Amino acid sequence: MAQPHTLSVSQAAEQMRGGQLLPSDYANALLERIDAHEPDLQAWVTIDREAVISDARQREQELEAGSDSRIMTGVPVGLKDIFYTAGMKTTACSRIYAEFVPEYDATCVTKLKEAGAIVMGKAVTTEFATSDPSPSRNPWNREHTPGGSSSGSSVAVAAGMCPAALGSQTGGSTCRPAAYNGIVGLKPTYGRISRYGVVPVSWSLDTVGILVRTVTDAAILLQAMAGYDENDPGSAEEPVPDFLQQMDRHAGPPRLGLLKTGYFFDRSTPEVRQHTEAVAAQLAQAGATVIDIDLPDSFSTAPDVQRIVMNVECAAFHEPYFRHRADEYGPRLRANIEMGMLIPSVTYLQAQRLRREFRRDLTAVAQQVDALLMPATPAPAPRDLDTTGDAAFQAPWTSAGLPTVVVPSGVSESGLPLGVQFAAAPFDEGRLLGVSRWCEQALDLDLRPPDYN
Amino acid sequence: MAQPHTLSVSQAAEQMRGGQLLPSDYANALLERIDAHEPDLQAWVTIDREAVISDARQREQELEAGSDSRIMTGVPVGLKDIFYTAGMKTTACSRIYAEFVPEYDATCVTKLKEAGAIVMGKAVTTEFATSDPSPSRNPWNREHTPGGSSSGSSVAVAAGMCPAALGSQTGGSTCRPAAYNGIVGLKPTYGRISRYGVVPVSWSLDTVGILVRTVTDAAILLQAMAGYDENDPGSAEEPVPDFLQQMDRHAGPPRLGLLKTGYFFDRSTPEVRQHTEAVAAQLAQAGATVIDIDLPDSFSTAPDVQRIVMNVECAAFHEPYFRHRADEYGPRLRANIEMGMLIPSVTYLQAQRLRREFRRDLTAVAQQVDALLMPATPAPAPRDLDTTGDAAFQAPWTSAGLPTVVVPSGVSESGLPLGVQFAAAPFDEGRLLGVSRWCEQALDLDLRPPDYN
Repeated sequence: MAQPHTLSVSQAAEQMRGGQLLPSDYANALLERIDAHEPDLQAWVTIDREAVISDARQREQELEAGSDSRIMTGVPVGLKDIFYTAGMKTTACSRIYAEFVPEYDATCVTKLKEAGAIVMGKAVTTEFATSDPSPSRNPWNREHTPGGSSSGSSVAVAAGMCPAALGSQTGGSTCRPAAYNGIVGLKPTYGRISRYGVVPVSWSLDTVGILVRTVTDAAILLQAMAGYDENDPGSAEEPVPDFLQQMDRHAGPPRLGLLKTGYFFDRSTPEVRQHTEAVAAQLAQAGATVIDIDLPDSFSTAPDVQRIVMNVECAAFHEPYFRHRADEYGPRLRANIEMGMLIPSVTYLQAQRLRREFRRDLTAVAQQVDALLMPATPAPAPRDLDTTGDAAFQAPWTSAGLPTVVVPSGVSESGLPLGVQFAAAPFDEGRLLGVSRWCEQALDLDLRPPDYN
Repeated sequence: MAQPHTLSVSQAAEQMRGGQLLPSDYANALLERIDAHEPDLQAWVTIDREAVISDARQREQELEAGSDSRIMTGVPVGLKDIFYTAGMKTTACSRIYAEFVPEYDATCVTKLKEAGAIVMGKAVTTEFATSDPSPSRNPWNREHTPGGSSSGSSVAVAAGMCPAALGSQTGGSTCRPAAYNGIVGLKPTYGRISRYGVVPVSWSLDTVGILVRTVTDAAILLQAMAGYDENDPGSAEEPVPDFLQQMDRHAGPPRLGLLKTGYFFDRSTPEVRQHTEAVAAQLAQAGATVIDIDLPDSFSTAPDVQRIVMNVECAAFHEPYFRHRADEYGPRLRANIEMGMLIPSVTYLQAQRLRREFRRDLTAVAQQVDALLMPATPAPAPRDLDTTGDAAFQAPWTSAGLPTVVVPSGVSESGLPLGVQFAAAPFDEGRLLGVSRWCEQALDLDLRPPDYN
């Protein structure tokens, strides 16, 4: 039988429902795993072991009583330390929030609990989920960045400390660290998951992200959390489908649009370009239709537009603290806030207008195929702990609000994971996940960091 | 039988449906009225007489065929010259739009036509619906401003050139000129009527306004135009009730909250204060319950907040023209655009945040009573053609998005109309109109400008 720390969410949940795995044994195995590797990897801020075990025991009793058939019963989930947890510190890894203990759970945390999940603990984030690096290390090579801002969440999942974790994405903070750590990342459509009780970076961009090891697991967590929330002004009233059923409807060989010309390939290393073409060829071999797709002209403005909106809204959120405590901020965040404060309103509003056009243009492109295919990052995780890497391949999708999935697709010559990214039209996550799962199965890899496998 | 130009929308529509008044006779009578008084009052930019008569004849045939029972069949409506009319110039009384001929009708114009209405023509507005005065004159005294920005629309209705006209309100551009000209004005809830095809001032404030001579007429036009429009990002998905039925449900003596302390009375002339108290006493005498209500503290920030948002969004809309053609703008609008361009984004975003709080606070106050009661303007229309008057009593409601109605309530010592303003909670127009109608009936006035009665 597989070791508990290698189980996916769906495997673990099934074994617990079937009585082959006790929630408390599972939780204990993961806590041991954390004890063994946390000194190396620095993935966690807060773990309340007693609460984890007591929650696991409670789920155990519910399962024994036969009254519990929920989709995530007994599954421990790590939470980036920007998600409010009632009675447990939520620091955003900042000096400003260092002692902040929320009185309530974020809506998405409540929903995970309602689906049977257990909170494993609070994972390391870069300060306020922006770009000053965190202490977390990449399990594939500790000299390389794990990416950001959802660094601890990605590292924890990659190193088998928990089968799933929540991140967030304002630029590239979920799908980039997913790629850098060789796991699956899902950034849903903007508005799909409530951000109520999530420390914001930039409210018109912020999206709750999912970090897991299989595409099916991404669908399970999305199902648990998706839906309108009147407490989040950006929450979408779009109905929530049965994502697993939708995946099954898109289980056949997909029609993929490869974004080979321009933006993505221009910015990629030769190795990444070759790898992406090889992946596309392998998927075509397995039955996919792969066509080349051109990007709309508006794509070239996307990174600047995303940065303007992010810096302005970030500055607006932090202004009340920043006025008195600017020297308690990290240098990159501080620079971003100061830059945001200088931007005239008209520039911000034109950026928002360009985003609406960009979303419309990109949606039209995405609707030509089942999913768009591109490299997940311009290069594997850089050998540089002073950076969190390059968000250029995520920021346009975050800006447009389209959903994306990263799937691990290989290992670089330097021994670091490589990934591909899929994108689809807004609220078409069912199709996107179906396509991603088909590709995941066609690639048939089981990538694990050699030192933490 | 009453002269056609004195008929209200509901009276005219009823007479036309009953065959006592022919649409073409009615249209001709109004066109004659315009011929007689337009040189004095300058209310119109464009009138296509042939189209008016031909539309009236068509309605006539439909009525004769017995196939038409629509609520506004044959009723000519004036349109502020910011509403797109397919094939007819929409100048916004500006040099920039001087030759602009839209290819489609504004959504609300389409809806009026669907209700049977006829477009009477395009009415004068201040340049781009802002604050540089227009040539229109107040029919009560041509040395006094008719107000702005819906100047021509208000003057046309007050002088009997048409029974109804569309205006718009970003600060105080519907309810203030209604009060200055002695007619009824309705500014619905933000989002209630689509602005698709309306030249914007400031999209998060702009509201389509209704100028008529009775409260019932305001309900008729609201019914014709209300409803969600996917082409307007600010459009509300709120269901549209039967407003006339709702008015009947609120036909009894209302509970009114008089805003006597602070903001409104502090800014009013002694005559306006006395008049408003006398109106309140008369309504109490007629059976209304009148209680004093205090305003929330956030009220004091409302005018500045409204101005910041308006100037910024106005600057963002005009930027592409303004870059090359600044000297073609009027001095006040130009100053507002320049001011808007200097405002940092963070200030704009904090202003928007304050507006959300302000809406919440004001809604709570409004929900304590059937309607809030206050003077419509600090003073009657100023004897000054270089101003459009003071929007201070409208801007807070526009900023918060709450609906307001102005009802004429008397004549000042100087012979100018005085009005009172009612406000209610968002989307509670049915109650607001019911209360306003009750008060209109209790006051039992029939105010007409002596020289144009």
